[in-house]
Amino acid sequence: MVIDSNFYMSLAIAEAWKYQGLTYPNPAVGCSVVSENGELLAVQAHKKAGSPHAEVQALKSAYYQLTKDEYILQKENSADIHNYLIKNHNNIFQNCSIYTTLEPCTSIGKTPACANLINKLKIKKIYIGSNDRYQNDFNNDARFGILKQECDELLEPFNLWQKDKFVFFKWAQRLDGSTDGVVSTIKSRKNVHAMRNLCDLLVIGGGTVRADRPTLDARLVDGKAPDILIYSRQKEFDKTIPLFNVKSRKVIISDNLSHIDGYKNIMIEGSKKMMELTKEITNFYLCYLHFADKFDVINAKKEDIISWMKQLPKRI
Amino acid sequence: MVIDSNFYMSLAIAEAWKYQGLTYPNPAVGCSVVSENGELLAVQAHKKAGSPHAEVQALKSAYYQLTKDEYILQKENSADIHNYLIKNHNNIFQNCSIYTTLEPCTSIGKTPACANLINKLKIKKIYIGSNDRYQNDFNNDARFGILKQECDELLEPFNLWQKDKFVFFKWAQRLDGSTDGVVSTIKSRKNVHAMRNLCDLLVIGGGTVRADRPTLDARLVDGKAPDILIYSRQKEFDKTIPLFNVKSRKVIISDNLSHIDGYKNIMIEGSKKMMELTKEITNFYLCYLHFADKFDVINAKKEDIISWMKQLPKRI
Repeated sequence: MVIDSNFYMSLAIAEAWKYQGLTYPNPAVGCSVVSENGELLAVQAHKKAGSPHAEVQALKSAYYQLTKDEYILQKENSADIHNYLIKNHNNIFQNCSIYTTLEPCTSIGKTPACANLINKLKIKKIYIGSNDRYQNDFNNDARFGILKQECDELLEPFNLWQKDKFVFFKWAQRLDGSTDGVVSTIKSRKNVHAMRNLCDLLVIGGGTVRADRPTLDARLVDGKAPDILIYSRQKEFDKTIPLFNVKSRKVIISDNLSHIDGYKNIMIEGSKKMMELTKEITNFYLCYLHFADKFDVINAKKEDIISWMKQLPKRI
Repeated sequence: MVIDSNFYMSLAIAEAWKYQGLTYPNPAVGCSVVSENGELLAVQAHKKAGSPHAEVQALKSAYYQLTKDEYILQKENSADIHNYLIKNHNNIFQNCSIYTTLEPCTSIGKTPACANLINKLKIKKIYIGSNDRYQNDFNNDARFGILKQECDELLEPFNLWQKDKFVFFKWAQRLDGSTDGVVSTIKSRKNVHAMRNLCDLLVIGGGTVRADRPTLDARLVDGKAPDILIYSRQKEFDKTIPLFNVKSRKVIISDNLSHIDGYKNIMIEGSKKMMELTKEITNFYLCYLHFADKFDVINAKKEDIISWMKQLPKRI
């Protein structure tokens, strides 16, 4: 294995993928910090909108790693971390390198600008993956395009919801492709509930609603329940099915998928049949792959989906 | 992500898995080296029997990383690397840490003892994953049991062929569980050929032989072809099928699986039907999982196999 800038960037990318979809409406971003001596000090990611950006999380961890100053650990708000680091950095970062999957932000939004923090801390080198939107003049020595393709892939959901809407099919399966019975573990279900908490609409097939009588909320993460579009030609449903009795939720029953218009972050759950029926509106596929006692969230590519589609006549 | 001894050990484990099966009859072993300043200097693995052990590969890379002395890069033989490092280390390793998935060897075999090299280089700290066989007195400061379970898993094939025989089912599929048509890419086929080169017997079903007319050799890696057991009740085969015309190969046609006795490293290739028919003799499952343009070799656990088995009545 070669230990180079691609290696440190790939750690940042892998960390960011763990929070893909969960950073809505922000992009998934990861960041590694390497010390003057080449020590890997931190690998962190942006975890949710409003919380510190990946660079801030990573610089917080790196600062603690270098100083063991426990005060920093109490700072959770982005502005507080910014201020604390700017006040106390004592030039410890001046020969550090930072690897960030996306060019650091320069504007002050819900959180202060990362580019400003990086400049103030006098970080020596910045390695950047994606910079589609603009190219900054950094005071620091900056290198662009590190693992650009993989960093760009990470941004795909963000680009979709920026442009119009993110419509992703959530596919859960075992390693053998089977989906019968209970596929998910408590850990993967928690991840799905965290995704639902951020979605404004969940699309599900009428057959599944009748068979499983689901609630389709985000209770495992104490989150809010999305609106539901039950895709069904048959409009009659037993209204004691729990999903109908979740507060502040709209339930649409229709065989017209244009009801997704006006929503931004849309999850479709279902089987291969549902995948086939919704392929025209779907623009992203996330596969929850279960094997042994683990699960991986895989960004299933168009090619895989085409393969699934090919299998359909044989499998159903 | 926490950057601690588990992190550096996990890099060594992941690197070792890339060569699982290919180190036969040696165990798969990985090794990371971290400098006095905490810089990750090397992550390497043992690649094949007779070639340098993981620790030697890693120390060679680490030495080059620290010194940029290009002479070391010309040394490929284990004894040569040992000698060169012992002569030229100049105490550069004395505050380094080494993370090795298996306790370093203490006996001189095809290659000099790693424990001796580590002592001579005055490496400060040794972090060890597995040490099932014996526990050494290291002059160096040693910590045992780092990610022990994962390091032990890595040794499972080695333990099996040490005890009696390693009988693994090689399963190739796409992410959707489908196996029809051409599943493998040139990269995954090369890996399979490298495995065949080390196997002494390959077990395959009669139906596959008749349908695919395979050669079943290791030509993609210029390797030797294993003996073949065609598992078939029907003994008549068209002898122009290429596998019958590979030099220095024995072909057995039988419906008696006890023909595997006397062989040590046995690969079974085939479909779900073949997996079912050979489950009594199989003691390891390797899944070549293809998705997008990538493939991963996954150590499919018993639970996955049970899941496959459950699927059988429905799927065939």
